[in-house]
Amino acid sequence: MSTASWLEIPSGSHFSLANIPFGIITTPASAEPHAAIAIGDHVLDLYTFAVNSGFAALQNFTPEHAKLFSQSTLNHFAATGQVFHRYIREYLQNVFALNTTVPQVLKDSNTAREAALFHKKDVKVYIPMKIAGYTDFFAGRNHAYNCGCIFRDSQKALQPNYLHLPVGYSSRASSVVVSGTPIRRPLGQYLANKMDTASQFGPCRRLDIELELGALLCRGNEMGEPIPVDKAEEYIFGFVILNDWSARDIQAWEAVPLGPFNAKNFASSISPWVILKDAIEGFHAKGIPNETQLHPYLQESRLDNVYDINLEVEIKTADGKVATFARTNGKNLVFSFAQMLAHHTIGGCPMKVGDLIGSGTISGTEPGSLGSFLEASAGGTRTFELENGIQRKFLQDGDSISIRAWCGKDGSPLVGFGECEGTIKPAPTL
Amino acid sequence: MSTASWLEIPSGSHFSLANIPFGIITTPASAEPHAAIAIGDHVLDLYTFAVNSGFAALQNFTPEHAKLFSQSTLNHFAATGQVFHRYIREYLQNVFALNTTVPQVLKDSNTAREAALFHKKDVKVYIPMKIAGYTDFFAGRNHAYNCGCIFRDSQKALQPNYLHLPVGYSSRASSVVVSGTPIRRPLGQYLANKMDTASQFGPCRRLDIELELGALLCRGNEMGEPIPVDKAEEYIFGFVILNDWSARDIQAWEAVPLGPFNAKNFASSISPWVILKDAIEGFHAKGIPNETQLHPYLQESRLDNVYDINLEVEIKTADGKVATFARTNGKNLVFSFAQMLAHHTIGGCPMKVGDLIGSGTISGTEPGSLGSFLEASAGGTRTFELENGIQRKFLQDGDSISIRAWCGKDGSPLVGFGECEGTIKPAPTL
Repeated sequence: MSTASWLEIPSGSHFSLANIPFGIITTPASAEPHAAIAIGDHVLDLYTFAVNSGFAALQNFTPEHAKLFSQSTLNHFAATGQVFHRYIREYLQNVFALNTTVPQVLKDSNTAREAALFHKKDVKVYIPMKIAGYTDFFAGRNHAYNCGCIFRDSQKALQPNYLHLPVGYSSRASSVVVSGTPIRRPLGQYLANKMDTASQFGPCRRLDIELELGALLCRGNEMGEPIPVDKAEEYIFGFVILNDWSARDIQAWEAVPLGPFNAKNFASSISPWVILKDAIEGFHAKGIPNETQLHPYLQESRLDNVYDINLEVEIKTADGKVATFARTNGKNLVFSFAQMLAHHTIGGCPMKVGDLIGSGTISGTEPGSLGSFLEASAGGTRTFELENGIQRKFLQDGDSISIRAWCGKDGSPLVGFGECEGTIKPAPTL
Repeated sequence: MSTASWLEIPSGSHFSLANIPFGIITTPASAEPHAAIAIGDHVLDLYTFAVNSGFAALQNFTPEHAKLFSQSTLNHFAATGQVFHRYIREYLQNVFALNTTVPQVLKDSNTAREAALFHKKDVKVYIPMKIAGYTDFFAGRNHAYNCGCIFRDSQKALQPNYLHLPVGYSSRASSVVVSGTPIRRPLGQYLANKMDTASQFGPCRRLDIELELGALLCRGNEMGEPIPVDKAEEYIFGFVILNDWSARDIQAWEAVPLGPFNAKNFASSISPWVILKDAIEGFHAKGIPNETQLHPYLQESRLDNVYDINLEVEIKTADGKVATFARTNGKNLVFSFAQMLAHHTIGGCPMKVGDLIGSGTISGTEPGSLGSFLEASAGGTRTFELENGIQRKFLQDGDSISIRAWCGKDGSPLVGFGECEGTIKPAPTL
């Protein structure tokens, strides 16, 4: 595929011709949310494009297919399966290619472009899928190790089960929101001092981020039928950035013995554009080695089972100061999404189209590569310093956190995720 | 309200005129699932009743309302709110009353009865709601205490947080099934011996039940807006029996530090008929005392904040032996559903119509009143004996567990839940 487009795609854009991520938008012309792709600084409204015969040049594209793009979520499109996603994505790459074989549908049609192609500043994005279920894993080995050192000690940092299975828990689907949604600091119970036996109540005092990747599913399994690990990638629609906001003080108090609950269920943010599985296929890489002999159901044939994804977390304070909080990479996982899905279903749990699977917090081992404030502040025991004089242990009201993720090197066309942003609002008063 | 009906309602029926529970059925006349009520040994197909002008005598009942009953779940009906549920339920009580004021719609119309009134043996029941989210609490204080004694000791049986908040966790909505659905024994990882450091893989060896009550929601809250505890009952559509099947060996290995996952997500069963909140309003009772000073957001005005519900668990083995496993009561909770909802949302978590809230396992303190095999077998350390020579530590393949629940005393009309049944099938072979 040529990477050149007749549309101007800024150098360094996350949304090169090699990408073609899918999302949900409204435009100045239509207040009804429906499907779109992002390309460079533009978005193509797929429903308008479809009703204006944009897919007329595509064999076997029916009016029923056009309706997929009229929905307010991508769930129906996702459910068509990876073969159809590939068919549509490759066609759209052709539509935007400099040497397109279908110039009449967009390139050479003022009418079609004016109807369906918008500058990104003129559209509003929405959550791309109706989240069916949300499971969050803990596959960032460095993060798990760092947390273990904070809460226990470095000798017993990883729990006995940690390398034998992808540890995970059910989280709350209803509180997954799209990038740009304000995040209200939660109220809750916490211990003011570690040795207290009774809790205090008030706004969370240890509000944190979790830098994660999320996979969205396009296929389910029958209840009682495990997904084989080497088939699991067939269930993945695509990927998003995930910020699993966390209330550490609430978590410490509530989580024994059944795990995090209110510490997590107040909000999780995802980026608006779904990077299709095909789009990052070329960026597979090896993850963190796991020295454990895995049970056969977790033994994956492919060794490069995670992705080389650059990750960057930026903080902007209420008074406008900006600093990078972390730079790391998606390779810092010890289990792949395929292994997570195989484990999730080994007991028979039915997965659904629209399920969101979180990787767990991704931290590196180098300075400035940690995916949570908990780690950077050593469990809240020290203030860390960033550029421009920003000092933090945990998030303050007014802080904006923006996570960016992309595959590819400077100078080559990027396959990027765009950003996932959230700004902390004060807790409500009861 | 008179409790006499022109329809023969067997003495001791769970579905007296005082009840009128809602569910989803198919009938010999219609293969499309839609809404119904249960009464005595019969069910009334509400959609057929509605299209045959059954609600013509009810003021302000529109064709749009009839459509609510044509859906394959009760979610849309639930979302109309408690005032409308009450309006419909009271009308249906009138329809079936001996001295009904609307005899023409059913009592005196052979045609209407033949079209819409079926014997229960001729209909098939379905899951009554599409489960939006599923949260399971741990509010059965005796169960929590018993588990604490098994895993720790009687001095530290209740965790420090236990009486300060309703401990709970997000569970898996996609694996909630209706009574009668076979339950496949899950495969998974477990420790063969407590001191092992590596897991074994195979069919669960400690498969268990959890006797619970479930509340289904008819109303959501805005993200960031806690539900006040004294308003929380307004969010409850009704109640069902819940059996939260549990794989204890898988749970013990996987649950550190993020809680139960595959130990629970393979299946949870609910009874098919939703007992409306109004129907059990008269059975409010005081729960287990909580000596803790609660934070204001958990302080409920009403003291009789749980329900006097008789609970009975029966086991039937593969070779046809039957025994009662447990008899207990819904009063054995230390937090109410209102308190659970207030806590669930205190950090801002948005609840949705169709959410299922589990009470946690309900155990009494008397002999034969335990809600799980884990407790009855003292953590699997002893075989317990039931009637007819049945001996168990945990569930065997072919065991059928049936839970029944009802409010009211012998001789008075009952408000019952019917039963919640599941039979254990062997684990799959990979």
